[in-house]
Amino acid sequence: MDTPTLIALLHGPDQPGLVARVSGWIFARGGNILHADQHRDMQAGIFFQRVEWVPTGATGVAEREAADFLAFADSLGMQARVLVSSRRARIAVFVSKANHCFHDLILRWKAGDFSGDLVAIVGNHTDLAEAARGYGLPFHHIPVTAETKAEAEARQLALVREVGADLIVLARYMQVLSADFLAKVDRPVINIHHSFLPAFAGGKPYHQAHARGVKLIGATAHYATRDLDEGPIINQDVARVTHRHDVDDLIRKGRDLEKTVLAQAVRWHLEGRVLVYGNKTVVFD
Amino acid sequence: MDTPTLIALLHGPDQPGLVARVSGWIFARGGNILHADQHRDMQAGIFFQRVEWVPTGATGVAEREAADFLAFADSLGMQARVLVSSRRARIAVFVSKANHCFHDLILRWKAGDFSGDLVAIVGNHTDLAEAARGYGLPFHHIPVTAETKAEAEARQLALVREVGADLIVLARYMQVLSADFLAKVDRPVINIHHSFLPAFAGGKPYHQAHARGVKLIGATAHYATRDLDEGPIINQDVARVTHRHDVDDLIRKGRDLEKTVLAQAVRWHLEGRVLVYGNKTVVFD
Amino acid sequence: MDTPTLIALLHGPDQPGLVARVSGWIFARGGNILHADQHRDMQAGIFFQRVEWVPTGATGVAEREAADFLAFADSLGMQARVLVSSRRARIAVFVSKANHCFHDLILRWKAGDFSGDLVAIVGNHTDLAEAARGYGLPFHHIPVTAETKAEAEARQLALVREVGADLIVLARYMQVLSADFLAKVDRPVINIHHSFLPAFAGGKPYHQAHARGVKLIGATAHYATRDLDEGPIINQDVARVTHRHDVDDLIRKGRDLEKTVLAQAVRWHLEGRVLVYGNKTVVFD
Amino acid sequence: MDTPTLIALLHGPDQPGLVARVSGWIFARGGNILHADQHRDMQAGIFFQRVEWVPTGATGVAEREAADFLAFADSLGMQARVLVSSRRARIAVFVSKANHCFHDLILRWKAGDFSGDLVAIVGNHTDLAEAARGYGLPFHHIPVTAETKAEAEARQLALVREVGADLIVLARYMQVLSADFLAKVDRPVINIHHSFLPAFAGGKPYHQAHARGVKLIGATAHYATRDLDEGPIINQDVARVTHRHDVDDLIRKGRDLEKTVLAQAVRWHLEGRVLVYGNKTVVFD
Repeated sequence: MDTPTLIALLHGPDQPGLVARVSGWIFARGGNILHADQHRDMQAGIFFQRVEWVPTGATGVAEREAADFLAFADSLGMQARVLVSSRRARIAVFVSKANHCFHDLILRWKAGDFSGDLVAIVGNHTDLAEAARGYGLPFHHIPVTAETKAEAEARQLALVREVGADLIVLARYMQVLSADFLAKVDRPVINIHHSFLPAFAGGKPYHQAHARGVKLIGATAHYATRDLDEGPIINQDVARVTHRHDVDDLIRKGRDLEKTVLAQAVRWHLEGRVLVYGNKTVVFD
Repeated sequence: MDTPTLIALLHGPDQPGLVARVSGWIFARGGNILHADQHRDMQAGIFFQRVEWVPTGATGVAEREAADFLAFADSLGMQARVLVSSRRARIAVFVSKANHCFHDLILRWKAGDFSGDLVAIVGNHTDLAEAARGYGLPFHHIPVTAETKAEAEARQLALVREVGADLIVLARYMQVLSADFLAKVDRPVINIHHSFLPAFAGGKPYHQAHARGVKLIGATAHYATRDLDEGPIINQDVARVTHRHDVDDLIRKGRDLEKTVLAQAVRWHLEGRVLVYGNKTVVFD
Repeated sequence: MDTPTLIALLHGPDQPGLVARVSGWIFARGGNILHADQHRDMQAGIFFQRVEWVPTGATGVAEREAADFLAFADSLGMQARVLVSSRRARIAVFVSKANHCFHDLILRWKAGDFSGDLVAIVGNHTDLAEAARGYGLPFHHIPVTAETKAEAEARQLALVREVGADLIVLARYMQVLSADFLAKVDRPVINIHHSFLPAFAGGKPYHQAHARGVKLIGATAHYATRDLDEGPIINQDVARVTHRHDVDDLIRKGRDLEKTVLAQAVRWHLEGRVLVYGNKTVVFD
Repeated sequence: MDTPTLIALLHGPDQPGLVARVSGWIFARGGNILHADQHRDMQAGIFFQRVEWVPTGATGVAEREAADFLAFADSLGMQARVLVSSRRARIAVFVSKANHCFHDLILRWKAGDFSGDLVAIVGNHTDLAEAARGYGLPFHHIPVTAETKAEAEARQLALVREVGADLIVLARYMQVLSADFLAKVDRPVINIHHSFLPAFAGGKPYHQAHARGVKLIGATAHYATRDLDEGPIINQDVARVTHRHDVDDLIRKGRDLEKTVLAQAVRWHLEGRVLVYGNKTVVFD
């Protein structure tokens, strides 16, 4: 599509006429709404909206209208975020040794599935360095040990800023990011946890699932927060298992879940479909 | 909820400003939009919307505003339908001998799942007469044979009008309704077909599925049209089967599918979530 | 089927030739194996088998052969249980106020889905008394309060023995059975928990799920043990939810899960498909 | 595992004692059964079995015992196939331009998911040549046009024989293989069709699905036969779609289905879990 579109996510205290005001504002400027979706949390009295529109045609109008909309939303007492479709998000992917989410994200990106671009692979091991370069992606090796963690995170932080990443995706990255890193990085971080959270939080979830004898295993994509495995959930899915599956089978079957659950979460995030409030998400899919 | 809400379903040629106009119209009359959802068929250039709102509080305003909205939609060149939540739909259920959808619909209705009321059970056999009466529902026996079909349909038609049914649900009713009946009845008719349409249309779909060796069986709820099994699809679901399942197992497993797929379709219809255009549906769920 | 079949569930330390010995034993007595399924837990070195056969035709041979098989299994160092298809299990269903699993179990039983018979409904409230009697099932009201719990459980125990129940099904029964009751009752007790265990164990799981913002809700059928919500899991399933679903919607959607997950677990149990070892189950489905 | 195992798939007219005879034969030779699974088609009176065992330890015994077992099965009047785990199957993958199944199969193979090896990529276009070589796999370009089809198939046939392929996988290969090729190739050919067969057989199934307004799309892996899209079904799965998904979305969502459905079918085939009879499969999973 040649003309850029604008996508606004807004939320705040509910009040009559919000839909009319927002759509009226857009219409008055000659814009045409492509999609608009709203939700009310009746108990909390909060209004949520995702609206996507094509602004009137003049070159460069999109960026200006995005700024104007933020001021308008503020005048309504709403918090807002506006994406301009012509400004593609830049993504840094953190990896360790496991390669399934790594390959999957890259192949989907190359297939044109994401409205954003992978710009850096960051690994605490070098196992995926060659594969990354084979895809034409820069690989940055930043080893992490208990002793060097603070220093390593400082390097990660500098790198993320340097490459101008808008989003960090933890593609089975096996280190816990510190609360300090998460506070400083100031960009969303999406993690994939290999269980159906809140079941089997913490380490070795497939071992936990096997020991408990559950009949379904799961995967959960969530925003990383300082409370490990407790961040807002974006997407989850499950697969059926039986007594015939040992831990290795759960790990193998889980890889498919992890790939699709993470990729869908990244896709939704990039399309401005995920709105976080409190410790939950509204996903306008 | 004490105050009735209004639900409008509208569609027509796309044009700029439709969202703003509709929400502005409601806001100008003191209404408050609870939900609004729209869809554009980009290729066909058609705009679809479902909007639900609470009109300003005066008694009796809802019915009047419903009529006003229809005129307003017409002025926009849109086709519309408006439901008033205080006017509960009346449902006639057609049955034969199978009882699973029959019990399921009645129990869900009694559990308060439907925004409408069952008012008559119509059977071409008497197998379910006693059970219907046990639930406090009138049972009407209208036998159908090849010779008496025209006459039987005339009786069905008279009955449907007499009980003021707004919707007919075919709960595994094993007779094909004639094109003539469907033309005259002038009310939506929802049917449940026991296959994943368009696979295995026609009779004995579980036998067909078993013969073909498929690995999933399905059920399809659709509006009945003169083209048998070809009407707009509202809802579908599937369940996994293996070589261990014989035809009887498929029939048994299929009952669960049929119940949930049909009940969900009826629920969506009653909540004004289903918009038909051409031979397809837009389901605002 | 006129000729009764025998179903044996056995498990014990793995050793070479077990399949050959068991099938040889049956063949030597003129029996014909209909189904045989085995599983090895490689790590624990345990062998599990379910075998179903038609014994040679003489009247009354089934009961005798069942006893003989137990002695034979013992000689192999295996624990075994043998079901004779002509001896239908008797089931007591415990209920409180919620009626969805209650109706569902009864209707499935009447549809011929279970190889066992409901013989008593036991309620700590009277809400379902009339409905039970409408189905022709005796309803026993045994109220339970904190003060009278011990006495009430004694009455429940006496009743279970009196009606000769082989299985107790807790169909959303809202009282916790004491460890003492479970020890004395000496019959399997199947419970349905309204979450995807081990997530959201304890009370009000749908409220917990809503608060956590999960994207799937679940239900779990398990054998009740003294460790609440910790017993061996028989069956689990999930359904997708979104931010649009409030707690009441989760409860409504959950009812469908609870019904199908519990009914399937009861069905598997009655068909001798569930073998418990440690805190897990092997389900030969 | 160091010791090779044997996997036998057999089927034929049912007769008493088959389980005992097969397991007795293995036990008498000092073998130990790891898994045994059987099925009876009651209507057709056919017995199906998959049995996996470790033969007694002497070097080279596995190949000999495989041959002996075939003779034994023949003496029982059963058709049989025996796999020796140490003899890994060789796989030729046919591709056109679409790359999702291509990458997926190769990455799963490299992750160790398959008990077989990819040995050749055959493309009628050169789009995937470089990627194949990047993975270290030989790419063979055999263009196909209406005029050169017979000649191209002769080249394909020669190549398949030359590389010693045991299995051909059509990974979204967009040419129809002729009945003549299928007759001559004498190896199983697994195809992935991008619909839930028998719905939407033939070309452009996602366009067909969109036009019909179905609520689920599917994919089907089947053995290719001279009757296009009519071969024995190995695996199927579906995904939910709504009116919001246009044909391109169906194609994108369908890619995930096609990948997992095809990979699972190939995996089952390689593990000797798929037994074909008539136009159906028994999958011992």
